Amino acid sequence: MNTMLSAPLAAAVAAIEPAGAQYATEAQQRLDSLTKPLGSLGRLEPMAAQIYSIFAGRIPLPLQRGAYVFAADHGVTDEGVSAYPRAVTAQMVINFLQGGAAINVLARLHRAELTVVDVGVDADFDEAPGLVRAKVRRGSRNMSREAAMTEDELAAAMEAGLDRARSASEKGQHLVAVGEMGIGNTTAASAIAAVLTGQSLDVVTGRGTGLDTAGRNRKIEVLERTLRLHFGAAARTPEPAEILRSVGGLEIAAMTGFILGAAAARIAVVCDGFISTSAAAVACALQPHTRDYLFAGHCSEEPGHRVLLDHIGIKPILHLDMRLGEGTGAVLAMPLIESSVRLFSEMATFSSAGVSEKSE
Amino acid sequence: MNTMLSAPLAAAVAAIEPAGAQYATEAQQRLDSLTKPLGSLGRLEPMAAQIYSIFAGRIPLPLQRGAYVFAADHGVTDEGVSAYPRAVTAQMVINFLQGGAAINVLARLHRAELTVVDVGVDADFDEAPGLVRAKVRRGSRNMSREAAMTEDELAAAMEAGLDRARSASEKGQHLVAVGEMGIGNTTAASAIAAVLTGQSLDVVTGRGTGLDTAGRNRKIEVLERTLRLHFGAAARTPEPAEILRSVGGLEIAAMTGFILGAAAARIAVVCDGFISTSAAAVACALQPHTRDYLFAGHCSEEPGHRVLLDHIGIKPILHLDMRLGEGTGAVLAMPLIESSVRLFSEMATFSSAGVSEKSE
Repeated sequence: MNTMLSAPLAAAVAAIEPAGAQYATEAQQRLDSLTKPLGSLGRLEPMAAQIYSIFAGRIPLPLQRGAYVFAADHGVTDEGVSAYPRAVTAQMVINFLQGGAAINVLARLHRAELTVVDVGVDADFDEAPGLVRAKVRRGSRNMSREAAMTEDELAAAMEAGLDRARSASEKGQHLVAVGEMGIGNTTAASAIAAVLTGQSLDVVTGRGTGLDTAGRNRKIEVLERTLRLHFGAAARTPEPAEILRSVGGLEIAAMTGFILGAAAARIAVVCDGFISTSAAAVACALQPHTRDYLFAGHCSEEPGHRVLLDHIGIKPILHLDMRLGEGTGAVLAMPLIESSVRLFSEMATFSSAGVSEKSE
Repeated sequence: MNTMLSAPLAAAVAAIEPAGAQYATEAQQRLDSLTKPLGSLGRLEPMAAQIYSIFAGRIPLPLQRGAYVFAADHGVTDEGVSAYPRAVTAQMVINFLQGGAAINVLARLHRAELTVVDVGVDADFDEAPGLVRAKVRRGSRNMSREAAMTEDELAAAMEAGLDRARSASEKGQHLVAVGEMGIGNTTAASAIAAVLTGQSLDVVTGRGTGLDTAGRNRKIEVLERTLRLHFGAAARTPEPAEILRSVGGLEIAAMTGFILGAAAARIAVVCDGFISTSAAAVACALQPHTRDYLFAGHCSEEPGHRVLLDHIGIKPILHLDMRLGEGTGAVLAMPLIESSVRLFSEMATFSSAGVSEKSE
């Protein structure tokens, strides 16, 4: 029923299977045999069980890691919805390519191979290692006046993400972080969150990279106009792809395609903040089994993030009050996911170590 | 005024200086110059600033890491306060030495050199790599009938910890995790927490490694008798060292000495769960500046842990519902602390990267 999806996307959606409940049961049996009180590894236990399930009853070690940052500009920045000028998107892409941004530092430290994907930045970039040039348009259209993308633009952006998932699979990556850079993109994510979850704009709209109260009020006012324009007369919840096309962004569409492609290839995906989670929410709306492949790296300070995480039904691993994007919160969670599977694989069992179990 | 401290301990307490507020200010200036929205690294920012302060205005990279697990038995296990038999303490020490416990897996993965310190296990161990034999007694005395330690035993246990801090300093370690193994030790930690914070036993007593409701009630009843025995007639809060001697444990005393020694040597200490945090709380009661050197790795499921963290005034880094001990929650937080200082040291600044700052 996703009439707007292009053939490659529809094929990816159709290829996503449930990870398999039988693996979760097997994993818990293993966890309960390890030399620790039952359940005492807390949230690391379901984390390990999820990886075991995604890889259909095995743990690939070490988990080969990738980090993907999708970048694009947003036409809606013409409405004054961001504290930073639009030029910062391109400046930060250059910063990524020079290795000086937060995501560079974290990807180096935590051994995630970093790929920056330009799907819609309003600037031209020379070829560079780690850069994928897949520009669809120099910024999405101003969603407060027209749909953010045409159908062709939506398909091209989503397929750019799908291509990166295919590449991750070919590289043998097991665990991928999905992040973004795009001045104005919390506005798009708030619009998606409001339409997908039915929550009010006041609940799902935050200060982005640093708006004051007047700035946030203006952002909400722009969002009200935008939702009225696209969905004002809708008698039912619009299709997920239609939400994405109308009020998404090129990088959000690419992340949605990436997440769907990763799930189809049985790769574990770590979402970062509000914007990448809005892409994950659209992916889950298109195919609910996608959730089996998703981790939430952290819960950011953007109020809509928690709303989307609850809507999808995934619990954030970290709570560090971050609001940076770029995939930083996702990469920071990777050592914890790796820890969970190392414990699963390498700990002694009660019987192998000769440790007494609980008294009854 | 700590009349009970031996001379080496009193010297360590006297040597602990405030880390220095000027360094925190310098650190925030640096953080605000980096290519990210102001404050957007959330809790990683004060984390980096704290390391910068502990090392008096520099960041040692990489942070050399150690993990110290102090093990001892508890006389109070005779009262039936634990779900596991006392023999498990020694069995788990052997598991540590064979590399099969959770802390082994995590210390290997996160490159923390692991040291196991026997300060009071009710078993004999052969010499082994990574084991420090500093047994004071084969288990503390049954605190429900007499003080857990004599003054000499308290001094010996604390000095065993102090020796490990000296060794960590000599090894050039910058960041040390402090954990423990000791069947029955949540009972001691609950006693310490109740006396130090004034909270009721019902608030600070949990299920340990897996007591049922009847077991927890018995534990509270034993604790009530214990506190009445030692502090029933006290007109004022007892001295911290007296609390430790009466209702602590040999490993808790050793951890207290270790934390004091680490703070005196300006080494950053990551506390683990309820029991190591009870040692940290005693250390802070002896010398409040100790807090400047402390990180809280995580918040465990034991209800008294949160009470102690609030009492000390430190915020846990992770919230993973763990309750394992051994230093596991502390070692898990190390990659995040390392991340914070890498970001601090390696990110580009707005001026170096040519990125526009926020519009005014």
